[in-house]
Amino acid sequence: MKEEFKVGTMLYPLPVVMVSCGDINGEKNIVTVAWTGTINTEPPMCYISLRKSRHSHRIISETKEFVINIATEQLACATDWCGVKSGRDFDKFREMRLTPVEGRVVKAPLIGESPLNLECKVKEIKELGSHDMFIAEVVAVNAESTLIDKSTGQFQLNHVHPLAYSHGKYYKLGEKLGSFGYSVNKKMQKK
Amino acid sequence: MKEEFKVGTMLYPLPVVMVSCGDINGEKNIVTVAWTGTINTEPPMCYISLRKSRHSHRIISETKEFVINIATEQLACATDWCGVKSGRDFDKFREMRLTPVEGRVVKAPLIGESPLNLECKVKEIKELGSHDMFIAEVVAVNAESTLIDKSTGQFQLNHVHPLAYSHGKYYKLGEKLGSFGYSVNKKMQKK
Repeated sequence: MKEEFKVGTMLYPLPVVMVSCGDINGEKNIVTVAWTGTINTEPPMCYISLRKSRHSHRIISETKEFVINIATEQLACATDWCGVKSGRDFDKFREMRLTPVEGRVVKAPLIGESPLNLECKVKEIKELGSHDMFIAEVVAVNAESTLIDKSTGQFQLNHVHPLAYSHGKYYKLGEKLGSFGYSVNKKMQKK
Repeated sequence: MKEEFKVGTMLYPLPVVMVSCGDINGEKNIVTVAWTGTINTEPPMCYISLRKSRHSHRIISETKEFVINIATEQLACATDWCGVKSGRDFDKFREMRLTPVEGRVVKAPLIGESPLNLECKVKEIKELGSHDMFIAEVVAVNAESTLIDKSTGQFQLNHVHPLAYSHGKYYKLGEKLGSFGYSVNKKMQKK
């Protein structure tokens, strides 16, 4: 039985990532977002949505660049803290002992402790109401060397437990239920 | 040590949901998407990105409506199957024994077996390259009655193991690492 529920943002689980911005040699900041996702495959494009009041909103509006740093179990506490506190009050890199690392394309710093950093260039800023959506193209990817399977060339992100965010809580990924296409193979095996 | 990796869509984990569309009394279809997320809080807005070749792309372009049906562990196999097969070849509701249920606002059917259905109206279709992004407002939410905590009024989605998608694989959520704000409380406790 279904009942009507208050209209709201109920799409979960979502990724939760640390977005770094600014200039590695100047003002920089980190903001945590769950309003993020992939919007296009070719070219690879992502978005982040930020409230205008966020310190990083002003920075990214000016520089038109940011970096999506995948968060992991080890980074969960820092991820939460960077989402609660403001860059107006704290140097988040220093407070969380995170290492700003030079990007390949953008001036914004990568977070060294994250195993995967997606450098993004903003293509459009879309005002939606409470949030502005920064639509961006991924222009470079930096991956932890030890997580690249040398035989397949694949990045083994699932080995590092990327964080998921669901209804106000952070989770590790749990049991694997199948790979894309498994339902068809399963059916064929039954025949 | 970081190395340059091929540029691609590497933002994970993502939600994976069954999107239903069409008309409950006419042509209807289900398509599975992971290129989805929340883009705005007030008003609540979501997006889905679809290739132009998808059968549902044509339907949603015409009706300007769709429903996001949260997928769960029990629905994992159907979720995968609806992502692999085309509505041109199959009646996916019938093949997967899913129940089309009337929505409150939209003509598109809800999937009865999903515990949470977000009815969405398309505001804009944005061509990005391989995919078109359907930017939509959530206009009604339907929730399984037994999952609404009567004392708090909260919907207990985490009790049903919503699916996450990461690097081509489906996962249940695993260990809970903390709630939003836990890093600050932890620090305060230490003092």
